[in-house]
Amino acid sequence: MTVAPDTGYTVGDYLLDRLVELGVTDVFGVPGDYQLEFLDHVVAHPRLRWIGGANELNAGYAADAYGRLRGMAALVTTFGVGELSAANAVAGSYAEHVPVVHIVGAPSKDAQGARRIVHHTLGDGDFDHFLRMSREITCAQANLAPATATREIDRVLSEVREQKRPGYLLLATDVARFPVEPPAAPLPRYTGGTSPRALAMFTDAASRLIGDRRLTVLADFLVHRLHCVDQLNALLAADTVPHATLMWGKSLVDERSPNFLGIYAGAASADPVREAIETASVLVTAGVVFTDMVSGFFSQRIDPLRTIDVGADQSTIGGRVYAPLDMSAALDALTAILTSRGVTSDALPVATPPEPSPRPDRNAALTQESLWDGLSDALTPNNVVLADQGTSFYGMAAHRLASGVTFIGQPLWGSIGYTLPAAVGAALAEPDRRIVLLIGDGAAQLTIQELGAFGREGLAPVIVVVNNDGYTVERAIHGPEQHYNDIAAWRWTELPGVLGVADALAVRVTTVGELADAIEAAAQAQDRMVLIEAVVPRMDIPPLLIELAQSASAANAVD
Amino acid sequence: MTVAPDTGYTVGDYLLDRLVELGVTDVFGVPGDYQLEFLDHVVAHPRLRWIGGANELNAGYAADAYGRLRGMAALVTTFGVGELSAANAVAGSYAEHVPVVHIVGAPSKDAQGARRIVHHTLGDGDFDHFLRMSREITCAQANLAPATATREIDRVLSEVREQKRPGYLLLATDVARFPVEPPAAPLPRYTGGTSPRALAMFTDAASRLIGDRRLTVLADFLVHRLHCVDQLNALLAADTVPHATLMWGKSLVDERSPNFLGIYAGAASADPVREAIETASVLVTAGVVFTDMVSGFFSQRIDPLRTIDVGADQSTIGGRVYAPLDMSAALDALTAILTSRGVTSDALPVATPPEPSPRPDRNAALTQESLWDGLSDALTPNNVVLADQGTSFYGMAAHRLASGVTFIGQPLWGSIGYTLPAAVGAALAEPDRRIVLLIGDGAAQLTIQELGAFGREGLAPVIVVVNNDGYTVERAIHGPEQHYNDIAAWRWTELPGVLGVADALAVRVTTVGELADAIEAAAQAQDRMVLIEAVVPRMDIPPLLIELAQSASAANAVD
Repeated sequence: MTVAPDTGYTVGDYLLDRLVELGVTDVFGVPGDYQLEFLDHVVAHPRLRWIGGANELNAGYAADAYGRLRGMAALVTTFGVGELSAANAVAGSYAEHVPVVHIVGAPSKDAQGARRIVHHTLGDGDFDHFLRMSREITCAQANLAPATATREIDRVLSEVREQKRPGYLLLATDVARFPVEPPAAPLPRYTGGTSPRALAMFTDAASRLIGDRRLTVLADFLVHRLHCVDQLNALLAADTVPHATLMWGKSLVDERSPNFLGIYAGAASADPVREAIETASVLVTAGVVFTDMVSGFFSQRIDPLRTIDVGADQSTIGGRVYAPLDMSAALDALTAILTSRGVTSDALPVATPPEPSPRPDRNAALTQESLWDGLSDALTPNNVVLADQGTSFYGMAAHRLASGVTFIGQPLWGSIGYTLPAAVGAALAEPDRRIVLLIGDGAAQLTIQELGAFGREGLAPVIVVVNNDGYTVERAIHGPEQHYNDIAAWRWTELPGVLGVADALAVRVTTVGELADAIEAAAQAQDRMVLIEAVVPRMDIPPLLIELAQSASAANAVD
Repeated sequence: MTVAPDTGYTVGDYLLDRLVELGVTDVFGVPGDYQLEFLDHVVAHPRLRWIGGANELNAGYAADAYGRLRGMAALVTTFGVGELSAANAVAGSYAEHVPVVHIVGAPSKDAQGARRIVHHTLGDGDFDHFLRMSREITCAQANLAPATATREIDRVLSEVREQKRPGYLLLATDVARFPVEPPAAPLPRYTGGTSPRALAMFTDAASRLIGDRRLTVLADFLVHRLHCVDQLNALLAADTVPHATLMWGKSLVDERSPNFLGIYAGAASADPVREAIETASVLVTAGVVFTDMVSGFFSQRIDPLRTIDVGADQSTIGGRVYAPLDMSAALDALTAILTSRGVTSDALPVATPPEPSPRPDRNAALTQESLWDGLSDALTPNNVVLADQGTSFYGMAAHRLASGVTFIGQPLWGSIGYTLPAAVGAALAEPDRRIVLLIGDGAAQLTIQELGAFGREGLAPVIVVVNNDGYTVERAIHGPEQHYNDIAAWRWTELPGVLGVADALAVRVTTVGELADAIEAAAQAQDRMVLIEAVVPRMDIPPLLIELAQSASAANAVD
């Protein structure tokens, strides 16, 4: 009998090959002593790059943005200290349906078995505390063991791919190096997502509801997460279909289309958008989740009797549920109904373009309004825009973006500071596109150490730091003059140089003209970081945010 | 019937008054929209100050150091995003026995009852995810409700005080403002910690074991956490008692005492310390927990038959357990035995002071050795020294500190970057003492945004950034040349100014002479932050850390 030779291929290699198969080419994380040897395998992998974060929260945020754009991301931290520092980022990925595989290096199974009081543990010999914590914020977990590691890796990765939510793999040092064989076949796909009978019944009910009526569509972020954007666009092209998105799904559709109504946000919508959605003859809501901040605090008025709701795994017509039914199958069925019924709906009346507001004087002091106007005009189709969950997000949400721009925000989880490290992840996920990061001074302080990563990786984002002297979004909700909403005063334009970005162009702008010049300079300097510190008044707040903040304040006040 | 008038006193006020009663005068945290109104009560409280952190992890670290020095600390974060960002800090407080009350602002009970998909939640209507996570890293938790809030606050605060570990209070907006009466009496103390019978039996057994033999003491951090330092000192003064501590308990005793042996670390100890502890006729181990990093990877050799182990709630002699028995009662009993037996042990032979190593040339390049030598010589009794868990901790651990110096490290939890925000907390806890922060460049990057807080609060620490070009502690364990152990190059001396510390003195030193000059300048500049960037060779590693890193590497390699 001969024994197969040891090829040196390990559990760690198997995991990395599976990640590559799922589209990962960059692994985010922070080195720690229970995964250093595994990192050797990351570094040695011909198709992977290691992207070290300045801390684990930042690495988790970067992985999240990468996962949004690539459809899969990987994050490596060490036991206890590392994984818990990343917990907020991982929970955010869960809340916002982002697939991230969180790999945590752990003490050897030997040390675990002996219940040794080793560093990075709570000192009680229980090595499952953090695994149990992970159950609340990931869709699948495994404490990998040698004999079942490859099967368990496949299970967790399949769930992450299917549910578009983070998974957790606890990888002890001695398990990572255990010899196994490489994957014999690609990770099998789940194929039971649509019942032919449910689809037929759905199609029949939808046909009857639609008849020869005009379809209106309200689409949201889940269409993007479930990779159904092409199916959505086909539906929108099958007739004259007026459509809107929520803020969460901003940039899901081409905002320059004549049939794009704008952003629907319940009572906080512009009147024409609200009317078009709420009085539609037949409304399709696709991938829509109404949360407080995207629905004007649950002020949406959608009549279920006139609505076809297309969800991730099931669809609903007039209160009746059709399942299991994949979103893509449901959208395809709706497209087929429009295509085959022989009706062409009238073109929408061409909206009178609003009177162009008088161009503000170059010497006028910068305001939130002129800032977002100036920036949104300057965006080009190649841009990926990340807007932090304060005045940046709500200021930009109200503007129509150029075709092709991708917009990233985090309106459900709403963790301030998220977008700065996320911009690193976005830049690595989409190396041919320019990143535009919009972030307030209060938010940027939470995660500023990641600035150096742009320099190290040779990335050239445009970063706009909205300097309004503290947490304006919190001031809007409560305590405008309270010192808890103040922050330390930083010299923003010096930060890139001090934090290791040698060639950044950094300017402070206080007027409309200075902003215009800075934007022009940024367009010229395509190969360098451009940081624009935009100084605006402390209590200047985008109108949309005022409305939402008042609702938030009222919601907190409910007895 | 008359109704008592509404005094405006709330659940939030009750909690704050209890915290003040337990010694808290500063509340750490980051504002968030589910606790802004509660923060109004913090700010308005005549005996509390609000200390805003640049992010929640940093605020948690600051609270931890404050809790170590004050015996109680409070941390306020917001739901989901805030509390999870602080999870690593809270878990560290748990691992290292530090009392911190973590107060988390939550959506109103109304919103929770309606399972509303509000921001900072996972979007599934389940508001208990993070409460369940907190069970793994806190000793007591409560989801406060109006009717039982004061009773539950008392329960959690009592457990935090008793167990010296963090507790968790979930405080919904509408619960915080619910009217209650102020505390009618101080929080009752638990009084059942010592059974008279157990104490008598322990005293009897200890007397027999001790007889007229010399006692040797090995003490550790739990003596400090349980507020038994005075009792320990009484024991050490009751005879000639040679004694040592572990690194975890460094500075627990006066390291200039003639009877202080040094630091015991198992096989990594200096030979005389090891011999004195391991061959003691009778050894008292007080508040000792042997973890990998403080025991030379479990290489301690302690004979249980000659050992009296004094723990938090029980003591052990020759394998027999006496309980319940408070540490203070056990130490007092031992002191009484020594005092009453009429034996005075011989004075220890005066150790020949080591040949003073030749003073290095002023122009010699700085090394880890000359750095820690120079710094430890310069410490004065007033100092609180925080050493981050890399070369700083292990470099300093081997040096005898001046009497009165307090040393703070985190050898079990070992979260790098901890000490920078912790230094803010320490400075606020001990406003009359000067803080000395020792931290590597890799570690400082994790938490650098807290630097501005020193300026805002008018604090004047001495900060030594050991610039060795990356994660040297990780290089020592694995991957000395791997790029995952590299970090971005920052211009350290410019950072205080850029991050809002206007008047800092910041110098870069590369030689022994420059370090001496910087230390002298720091001694002169008592009212300003002094930042010393100390440049040392990349792979220059303190001997103690080399030894432990080799053991760590070997432990990871065990199959």
